Amino acid sequence: MKVFVLFVAVAVAAWQCHGADGDRDHGVDFQIFPLRMKSGLGGHYIPEISCQSWRLGVEAHNIIGFSSVPADCVGYIGNYLIGEQYRSDSKTVCREAYFYVKTLNITDRDAWVFDIDETTLSDLPYFADHGFGAEPFNSTAYNAWVYLGVAPALPESLKLYRKLVTLGIKIIFLTGRTQAQHEVTAANLKQAGYYKWEKLITKDTTIYNGKTALTYKSTERKKVEEEGYKIIGNIGDQWSDILGTNTGARTFKLPDPMYYLS
Amino acid sequence: MKVFVLFVAVAVAAWQCHGADGDRDHGVDFQIFPLRMKSGLGGHYIPEISCQSWRLGVEAHNIIGFSSVPADCVGYIGNYLIGEQYRSDSKTVCREAYFYVKTLNITDRDAWVFDIDETTLSDLPYFADHGFGAEPFNSTAYNAWVYLGVAPALPESLKLYRKLVTLGIKIIFLTGRTQAQHEVTAANLKQAGYYKWEKLITKDTTIYNGKTALTYKSTERKKVEEEGYKIIGNIGDQWSDILGTNTGARTFKLPDPMYYLS
Repeated sequence: MKVFVLFVAVAVAAWQCHGADGDRDHGVDFQIFPLRMKSGLGGHYIPEISCQSWRLGVEAHNIIGFSSVPADCVGYIGNYLIGEQYRSDSKTVCREAYFYVKTLNITDRDAWVFDIDETTLSDLPYFADHGFGAEPFNSTAYNAWVYLGVAPALPESLKLYRKLVTLGIKIIFLTGRTQAQHEVTAANLKQAGYYKWEKLITKDTTIYNGKTALTYKSTERKKVEEEGYKIIGNIGDQWSDILGTNTGARTFKLPDPMYYLS
Repeated sequence: MKVFVLFVAVAVAAWQCHGADGDRDHGVDFQIFPLRMKSGLGGHYIPEISCQSWRLGVEAHNIIGFSSVPADCVGYIGNYLIGEQYRSDSKTVCREAYFYVKTLNITDRDAWVFDIDETTLSDLPYFADHGFGAEPFNSTAYNAWVYLGVAPALPESLKLYRKLVTLGIKIIFLTGRTQAQHEVTAANLKQAGYYKWEKLITKDTTIYNGKTALTYKSTERKKVEEEGYKIIGNIGDQWSDILGTNTGARTFKLPDPMYYLS
């Protein structure tokens, strides 16, 4: 073990020497990422490493306010989303949520807030056709997709949903989809297997036009609590789903490296 | 592209069928993770995938309050920490912090809060000898390591530190290390290259004994602000470093899959 500790000490020291190579950030537009970050012993650029760091940065709220996936990472993000890691990452989050719920004594006012897109329903068929987030968000095309009403369920979220319903928890869907999209969303949820809910809250654009998602969702959750519900949990794919006020007793973030909503 | 969209739709549908295999969670102690999660087309357990999900869960504040790294993931976590991904993940966070700072007009009351362990200094030589977090935290052994005063700098954090100092930002170290450890910590910081600071705040155990890290750090940051500093940024490896009150205008979380402090 002592030899191993020595190895680690040498590795850390080597890490430091690697760091002394200097930094070439100055003067570069920070909007361009990942900027050929040097990795590897020979200082070669390795997209797999760099793009995984980008994805982690998004998930941990270090990288915020981006308008698209970095061009160099589009292939990586696409592979992530259609592969096993995304499934496993989602399952891990939903599992933790269920383990948490099992520690509670559920009452009939207990509610769980679900976001919809990339939380309950998957827009992956849409994003597969739009560079998995490489293109800046195109609301016209996206709304056309929403109105088709064919978004599939995210399977791990559906499993969590079923467990919560079985436990008697009130389900509250809270989405940035607009009131005009309410009916098609309700039908899509049912078709995907989300067969009942306490509330489906869609956005009143006359009130919230120009407001951030965080403001909208905080305000609506506050109203839910004022009605007497207790938000025991809140799950979403955007930090704006789970930050703000009246966030709920515990929040869970599902992975979404494709886009960022404030 | 339409064929690709069809492929994605089929992949998502297959995902859902895979999900219909059922869930075997009931009755199992949730402290045991990852619990042989099925992954892969044949449903085989793949530690690389499962442990990466665990790590992501920790970084995104979905997995909290754990007392050790899951036994099955110790090898994975060890490899992560001594390899390129940890370096890249850290560099990405520090880069974002620097890009953010460059958008600000710095004044002479602007301060940046740094945690110390796993944020500024690395305890990896200690944790390499203690299973990279596989063992529940041993404060006696850990304190003996702290008193050696030989923790190396985390190179990306050191680079960020230097940039902030150059910009005239006041550096505030805020650590759970105790006042008894103040002198050895100051010497260790200097030896590691952190040559100046505005404050090095160590924990007064007569005040904070039995209080959480989150409470301690929130209280101390509040005092800093009451003195007139403006905390423009705050970086740490634990969520308890960057949650609570008076968190700073923007926070950054460095990776740490080894342990969790409330």
